[in-house]
Amino acid sequence: MVRVIDELAHRVEEQGISLAGVHNCAHLGILAPYLETITAQQLVGVILTTSEALVHPFGGRERMLGTNPIGIGVPAAPNPLVVDLATSVVSMGKVLDHLERGLDLEAGWAVDADGNPTTDPLAATVGALSPFGGPKGYALGLAIEALVATLTGTALGKAVGGTLDTNMPVSKGDLVLLIQPRILAGTDSFDQVSDYLSNVRSSQPRYATEPVRVPGDGTRHRRARFLEKGLDIDDALWDQLLDCSTTQIHSLRGTLHEEPYRRMRDPR
Amino acid sequence: MVRVIDELAHRVEEQGISLAGVHNCAHLGILAPYLETITAQQLVGVILTTSEALVHPFGGRERMLGTNPIGIGVPAAPNPLVVDLATSVVSMGKVLDHLERGLDLEAGWAVDADGNPTTDPLAATVGALSPFGGPKGYALGLAIEALVATLTGTALGKAVGGTLDTNMPVSKGDLVLLIQPRILAGTDSFDQVSDYLSNVRSSQPRYATEPVRVPGDGTRHRRARFLEKGLDIDDALWDQLLDCSTTQIHSLRGTLHEEPYRRMRDPR
Repeated sequence: MVRVIDELAHRVEEQGISLAGVHNCAHLGILAPYLETITAQQLVGVILTTSEALVHPFGGRERMLGTNPIGIGVPAAPNPLVVDLATSVVSMGKVLDHLERGLDLEAGWAVDADGNPTTDPLAATVGALSPFGGPKGYALGLAIEALVATLTGTALGKAVGGTLDTNMPVSKGDLVLLIQPRILAGTDSFDQVSDYLSNVRSSQPRYATEPVRVPGDGTRHRRARFLEKGLDIDDALWDQLLDCSTTQIHSLRGTLHEEPYRRMRDPR
Repeated sequence: MVRVIDELAHRVEEQGISLAGVHNCAHLGILAPYLETITAQQLVGVILTTSEALVHPFGGRERMLGTNPIGIGVPAAPNPLVVDLATSVVSMGKVLDHLERGLDLEAGWAVDADGNPTTDPLAATVGALSPFGGPKGYALGLAIEALVATLTGTALGKAVGGTLDTNMPVSKGDLVLLIQPRILAGTDSFDQVSDYLSNVRSSQPRYATEPVRVPGDGTRHRRARFLEKGLDIDDALWDQLLDCSTTQIHSLRGTLHEEPYRRMRDPR
């Protein structure tokens, strides 16, 4: 993906716009870091990606759609606007995290194998995730599924494999679009967007004690806190990571043994 | 907008992708008809557009965002997949329609001038529309606001004018992206998407009596019914239309006087 972005960033300076359809690429994890790479070059970026079917249609119960995130990055100061959102309410990773921690899911996150809403994480793992925002999130996820498959020649719905079971070949696709605003809009300035985001932050909040936030504000806050105080990692996951670090993922070893991200308890 | 699409459709056959940033264009109304024009040419289309600030941020109460719809069209048979959704739960048009009909709004559609959720359409007209899907719909609407303004050189947030008050100059923008899948993915076939949409429709529904629908199914159904039975138009709006047809919008006159869309009562 880094190579794709580098190539697109090179081409976009001449053409103003460049698009890559990617297949046979492993799970991208979160899109935000890639979008930050793009906005750091004063470019606008959009990334769409599909994944194994986990989400039921609005009005349905079967897993027919991936969590199909949409990522949009627009340069701004002091921080770019980076939006990275799955079209499901939550990721299956969050469900599994709740399962391991013994926590209930929130209402509306998932349905069980019979299509009934559930807050039991175990029931959700054999059921399906719910689309965010009802019919609109479903429509958006479906459009991303069709758009990505059409433009990358990759699979759709239940035919997508390899993002949950990493022993399977990956048959999902990714779309990466870069745009050079200087060429399209004739300006290098992102002051207008920066001012706007600042106005949104200082607009009247719903509750006086909770200022309005812009997407990314919470993540930046958590990142700063984690860098200072360390990460809260579930025991089983921590053991798995340590195990990986001595067996498969050698590049992790140094980091984990030096423990720059110390574990912390009750960080919330 | 029709001219923009024609020009982009011409260029996309050579370049594979073409993007237009549009300014000084009047309110587009709904995006779906434009997307249908694009998919009829076996092209993929994405349209983003901004509008006067009517939507409050998640966690906020002031009108800071337009209803900022996203439209995506992908060719398929027998019908294309056309998704056209505002990033607010509903449009202000729907609120005004409820006001004129004397109906309450549904919970979650809007807040009043103090930022409290309201089902009173009159209170909503001086309050703000709510983003769909909570923080995610807010994030998407904000990204569209920033993306469109950056790439078209148009205004953001409260600085956008001319889409509600048509006596003001229009300062919103539109982005239109066309992609020729044959050039990017090397195929002219949309069979895969057609099969997928068919699979989604025939997947297990939440309730046995209500089959799963794909975005556009409901609209096509309603369009067929309206063509057969006529449109249900509020008396005041009907009189306005008749008045327009004899004063300003001469092209409407023939249509209205011939009444191919007869008025109907209680069509629901």
